[in-house]
Amino acid sequence: MNCIIASTSTIYGSTYLEYLKPVLSKHFKNFEEVLFVPYARPSGLTYDEYTAKAKDGLKFLNTTVKGIHQFDNPIKAIENAQSIFVGGGNTFLLVKTLQEFDLMPVLKQKIVSGTPYLGTSAGSNICGLNMQTTNDMPIVMPQSFETLGILPFNINAHYFEPDKNSTHKGETRRTRIKEFQVFNDVNVIGLKEGSWLEVRGETIQLKGELDAVWFEPNKTPQIIKVNTYL
Amino acid sequence: MNCIIASTSTIYGSTYLEYLKPVLSKHFKNFEEVLFVPYARPSGLTYDEYTAKAKDGLKFLNTTVKGIHQFDNPIKAIENAQSIFVGGGNTFLLVKTLQEFDLMPVLKQKIVSGTPYLGTSAGSNICGLNMQTTNDMPIVMPQSFETLGILPFNINAHYFEPDKNSTHKGETRRTRIKEFQVFNDVNVIGLKEGSWLEVRGETIQLKGELDAVWFEPNKTPQIIKVNTYL
Repeated sequence: MNCIIASTSTIYGSTYLEYLKPVLSKHFKNFEEVLFVPYARPSGLTYDEYTAKAKDGLKFLNTTVKGIHQFDNPIKAIENAQSIFVGGGNTFLLVKTLQEFDLMPVLKQKIVSGTPYLGTSAGSNICGLNMQTTNDMPIVMPQSFETLGILPFNINAHYFEPDKNSTHKGETRRTRIKEFQVFNDVNVIGLKEGSWLEVRGETIQLKGELDAVWFEPNKTPQIIKVNTYL
Repeated sequence: MNCIIASTSTIYGSTYLEYLKPVLSKHFKNFEEVLFVPYARPSGLTYDEYTAKAKDGLKFLNTTVKGIHQFDNPIKAIENAQSIFVGGGNTFLLVKTLQEFDLMPVLKQKIVSGTPYLGTSAGSNICGLNMQTTNDMPIVMPQSFETLGILPFNINAHYFEPDKNSTHKGETRRTRIKEFQVFNDVNVIGLKEGSWLEVRGETIQLKGELDAVWFEPNKTPQIIKVNTYL
């Protein structure tokens, strides 16, 4: 496998995908075309609008960026893709749409066979065993919560630690993930904004500026240092 | 109908249900027993633990508080209840459990017929048309997202406005609710912690200390002042 699985597309004070430029320059090197999957539709953007945004963010690569919706047959579009980018937005919507077009199996097959993959946010969540550690609102109902399972654990994207000064009484991320693990025997990585997982062959490495948090059922969460292999 | 539909059970710097004591003293007056529904299991609490917490929070009423799990037949428990309290926690888990025991129809019937109802957080979310504006993690998969529909709109509990100083790039509540409305023609009220809806007969009134926010599809969100009738 050959994947960049990023917590977010955009970090504070920076433009879309800007912080990932160095790693993406290598990741997509030698590939003439990136297939973009805009199904997660952040803020309800249309597929065309979102694809234009991805195109703009990847301009520095000098490759062609095409939206999967521009192809008559999305299964063939994935089968024939040189490299793939699944953008963020709403994970429920992304998973529902991938299921409706029956794209999960072909996307998994394509990634496992080594096609360069970039996921951000929702596009990273789907790399886990299921989407049940998403932060998103259930704006649509997918057929199931199962996802690609190319990682042997789940992702919590946009992870952040509780603000000790907060007066908000809604659940923290830690509480939510521990609740998830009361009902699901699945490990979870909390990936902070600016961090990503780099998957090369059989290795998975934490990259970026910030530590991550590793949750196992019935155990105290552990800090994972940058550059650790998982 | 005769309902208190609260954003949260607990406000900052205060104990469980404390801020609601004055309104609950009237709401549950003349009722000897409150049926508590602990299915939402905040932080993975057991039904017994959660019921003990509710009992403690309602001690000031001098009524009996019984957990629905203490009854052999939960449908009959609801049918025979003098008054009902559905506690907060995880909305997916609450809805799934209510569906498994086939409790949605009887609970709706009971509330519509005027039985005093208290909902906090997840217990308030289920009063809307569907649970698709919950903030909770999808830790389990319910049969459907449909809920009681005793209100003609949806609730977003624990609502808060974006912090202008935040560096976090995850979606704000406003963005999430607007995304929901791209796909669902349903109005939504953002209820801040410390606010509740008081439903008496056919009237629905915003109560508490804080304004709420009203979202209609394709319109600018509106502030709703305390004491407004909806």
